[in-house]
Amino acid sequence: MRLATIRTADGTRAVRVDDDAAVELGHPDLGALLRSPGWRAEATATDGPRHDLAGLDYAPPVPSPEKIVCVGLNYRNHILEMGRELPEHPTLFAKFARAQVGAYDPVVLPAGSQAVDWEAELGVVIGAETRHATPEQARAAIAGYTVVNDVTARDFQYRSPQWLQGKTFEASTPVGPWLVTAEPDDAPLTGELSCTVDGELMQKADTADLVFDPAALVAYISGIITLSPGDLIATGTPGGVGHARKPPRYLAEGSELVTRIDGVGECRNTLVRG
Amino acid sequence: MRLATIRTADGTRAVRVDDDAAVELGHPDLGALLRSPGWRAEATATDGPRHDLAGLDYAPPVPSPEKIVCVGLNYRNHILEMGRELPEHPTLFAKFARAQVGAYDPVVLPAGSQAVDWEAELGVVIGAETRHATPEQARAAIAGYTVVNDVTARDFQYRSPQWLQGKTFEASTPVGPWLVTAEPDDAPLTGELSCTVDGELMQKADTADLVFDPAALVAYISGIITLSPGDLIATGTPGGVGHARKPPRYLAEGSELVTRIDGVGECRNTLVRG
Repeated sequence: MRLATIRTADGTRAVRVDDDAAVELGHPDLGALLRSPGWRAEATATDGPRHDLAGLDYAPPVPSPEKIVCVGLNYRNHILEMGRELPEHPTLFAKFARAQVGAYDPVVLPAGSQAVDWEAELGVVIGAETRHATPEQARAAIAGYTVVNDVTARDFQYRSPQWLQGKTFEASTPVGPWLVTAEPDDAPLTGELSCTVDGELMQKADTADLVFDPAALVAYISGIITLSPGDLIATGTPGGVGHARKPPRYLAEGSELVTRIDGVGECRNTLVRG
Repeated sequence: MRLATIRTADGTRAVRVDDDAAVELGHPDLGALLRSPGWRAEATATDGPRHDLAGLDYAPPVPSPEKIVCVGLNYRNHILEMGRELPEHPTLFAKFARAQVGAYDPVVLPAGSQAVDWEAELGVVIGAETRHATPEQARAAIAGYTVVNDVTARDFQYRSPQWLQGKTFEASTPVGPWLVTAEPDDAPLTGELSCTVDGELMQKADTADLVFDPAALVAYISGIITLSPGDLIATGTPGGVGHARKPPRYLAEGSELVTRIDGVGECRNTLVRG
């Protein structure tokens, strides 16, 4: 099941994206739907006003999550190829909700940055309040998966020891177009993750190559703080970012950024000046 | 003017803390009040149900801020005494809202940490939506000041290159008891900041010693992302933390943590096991 938040002339709507139409679910956005305890059954059964799939205006799936937790250094091949050891603990940092844009929205080049880079990632959306989760509870707390590009201003990222300021520029992070739901006993999602810039393939990996998989991340983070319905975890990016190329490659005004995960979806965003 | 959020038998209330009583302001919390455009005049003029000052149960001033931005390495004397150069840019990281506790609440020792440390800080609360602010606009966007202790699990902080996981444990960060309001043309607040543990003075500094003062931080952060009413900036801590002592000193079950800023207020919190 695919669930999305779309923009309409009078506000956003949570919808189920069926093969022939998007069906309104009676909530203003997916954050509100996911806070409804029986959201899986509700989303499956609800019938409401319908929208043509062509021309849907997708907001980020959860426009105002309580938390966005990002993970660094989490693709095995990329870590090993750089000669590092696999980490014992995940590297976690945050992003604020206003950094998000929808799957086809413009991505705003941060003012003052000359080094805007791509980071294709699998996004995990939380579907239940979760604290100190066992691996099984963690799996059951995953509402589903989405596509994220953790677009990063490298110059700001490395201005100080902490990455936040390069990671949370307003309207810089595509998320969407939808959430592909998971069932509580589903195995971890695996699929090819890719990023192309102006048609050129820059990143390609399998999400099975994550050192800390979605359930492991949910369990770990829930040991620190309660995860809430709608929270987003961006699970980290594989090799192939522009900053590591020789010479480095960055995004510029007009760049076309395509972020794709097989079985989940695709974001297509154009870079614009702020 | 002192503004707070108190807990009552049927939910939280925004109040003005006068010398003789706390007066309800018609909003569920200070976050809601601060989103009201004329909040200064409204808070000054409103009369409502009154509460005795004795026995008030203080919530964090803004229980659910959209953002908490923390600053590292920001006290001049402390940086210089460590032989470092003054930074050109602030070090920014995040904390999630659920890390907050009220001024007299228990602080929960993070499960699994053996190195829980104190960091007394001046908190700045935002009073207006602010983006790309000039220094004057930044000053006018400050609603006021509060007391923060950025309690940190050092072992988790240094598990990875990013500090978030040591900084955002549930119910670990005292904030409050109130917001002391600032007027748009006020000079930066200066006052003595101190932290005592079990009656022993651990940190003492003047908030005038900040490398990046509140208005400079608001201007800088607003160049990255829109600041919203109720957002909290924790401006950094001076020397004297437990981790830097020889031998190191940490908080334990039963520790009494007092965090104080002259002219702002005081938090008194007891450490408890989770």
